[in-house]
Amino acid sequence: MNPEPTQTAAAQAALAARYGADAPQIGAVWNDTLEGLLAHRSVRAYLDRPLEPGTLEAIIAAAQSASSSSNQQFWSVVAVEDPDRKARLAELAGGQAHIRQAPLFLVWLADLARSEAVAHRAGVGGEALDYMESLVVALVDVALAAQNAVAALESLGLGAVYIGALRNQPEAVAELLGLPPLVAPVFGLCIGHPDPDRPAQVKPRLPQTAVLFHETYDLQAQPGPIAAYDATLRGFQRDQAMAEIGWVRSVVRRVSQMKALDGREHLRSALLGFGFKMK
Amino acid sequence: MNPEPTQTAAAQAALAARYGADAPQIGAVWNDTLEGLLAHRSVRAYLDRPLEPGTLEAIIAAAQSASSSSNQQFWSVVAVEDPDRKARLAELAGGQAHIRQAPLFLVWLADLARSEAVAHRAGVGGEALDYMESLVVALVDVALAAQNAVAALESLGLGAVYIGALRNQPEAVAELLGLPPLVAPVFGLCIGHPDPDRPAQVKPRLPQTAVLFHETYDLQAQPGPIAAYDATLRGFQRDQAMAEIGWVRSVVRRVSQMKALDGREHLRSALLGFGFKMK
Repeated sequence: MNPEPTQTAAAQAALAARYGADAPQIGAVWNDTLEGLLAHRSVRAYLDRPLEPGTLEAIIAAAQSASSSSNQQFWSVVAVEDPDRKARLAELAGGQAHIRQAPLFLVWLADLARSEAVAHRAGVGGEALDYMESLVVALVDVALAAQNAVAALESLGLGAVYIGALRNQPEAVAELLGLPPLVAPVFGLCIGHPDPDRPAQVKPRLPQTAVLFHETYDLQAQPGPIAAYDATLRGFQRDQAMAEIGWVRSVVRRVSQMKALDGREHLRSALLGFGFKMK
Repeated sequence: MNPEPTQTAAAQAALAARYGADAPQIGAVWNDTLEGLLAHRSVRAYLDRPLEPGTLEAIIAAAQSASSSSNQQFWSVVAVEDPDRKARLAELAGGQAHIRQAPLFLVWLADLARSEAVAHRAGVGGEALDYMESLVVALVDVALAAQNAVAALESLGLGAVYIGALRNQPEAVAELLGLPPLVAPVFGLCIGHPDPDRPAQVKPRLPQTAVLFHETYDLQAQPGPIAAYDATLRGFQRDQAMAEIGWVRSVVRRVSQMKALDGREHLRSALLGFGFKMK
């Protein structure tokens, strides 16, 4: 009789880094792609070294290979390499030095302008673009695309970090990049060669029992795994010589007060200003 | 002198499938992960064969390894395997038979309820959750997570297709899955072993010149590549014995009339009903 296939040592180690003591069982399901995806960490320190020629085009090809709702491709991306423009974007994102330091900064855009222009040239209007649904599709599609780009660049040994603070002052970002109506910056992405002297660590996530449900959702099941996660994250922060905040306090900070949004409380009015009617 | 590194035959073939005649140059940048990502196709025909034990947990580990804004993890997922529940979801999504056929159907959720509950137990409110920003974060984070799951499952030889039609009747989906307030279904994902007798093809995408810009956005640059793409897509549709609609007509159909949204024109009111205030 064959023994039950069991987790490899590599899988075991990757799951322990991602979940601490509360790792799920994945049996024999493992390969290099899973190993790469589970090893993700946000990189904020880069070498002063340019990317290989073709890197940008290759990762955008991966991005465009992600699914797109009805193939409408409601997104675009602006590649910023100019130091002055990166410096200005860093400033608009609350002074994040890694935006200046990364050789490549991508600004990912929800883009209904291309489709509106196609409709206009065909002599019709873009009535359906005025609905919340179209913004939701654009946000989902641009995120699917960006995540494929991240999977691609990490497989090439590069590192990246998403910059949500690009939504702090979206009108100024739009002006700097010359965005027309119906195009909005959703997030940025710093890309470069990770500095081996300042390595980033895999951050633990919530146990699967707090996130993955079977057949129906379960809010009551969550307090136990959340408490366990709070302890796991405190342990991680202690090991990293970071402030030992845990998860519960970080959630309370982020959600309990409007001022934690750093200007992003104006996002709805910014989107309306860009022409997204969100009916 | 070494010759300039050039694209491998595998890269060449993958780019030709994705872009037709308008493929970008990616030089020597290539590996198995890129090959896997570029080979994505939406699979709507599955074998009647269960998934290996541990598959669900492994792909959710990949999903949770994606970045999450300030580590807030504003998403959850419900795994549906029960045939009756899948049949009902198929019906709610406009009668898509592949939802019934796939052994696993994932419903990806924007989830602010977990954070609201954490804040509530800490004796504070969730004021910041009432803003559009929080919904945008949830939509982006759930899409990043789902796309990592797709990259993972495709690397395991499985196939998948996103189901946006889960937003046609979101209230009925929420009721079926027992979703509490502040949790909304964003999209579904069918997962299974692809039926080799009904293979799916790589779908061409817009040339990079219509999607990727340098330093600033350019709307004027787009009509040329869009016309070229319309011809590429018509050629693809002809080869696949599909209706030769091209891209321009599909955009016009989707954006020019509200009724093309198949009920999703009510999404804003559904989200308000779920408790997303979108201030």
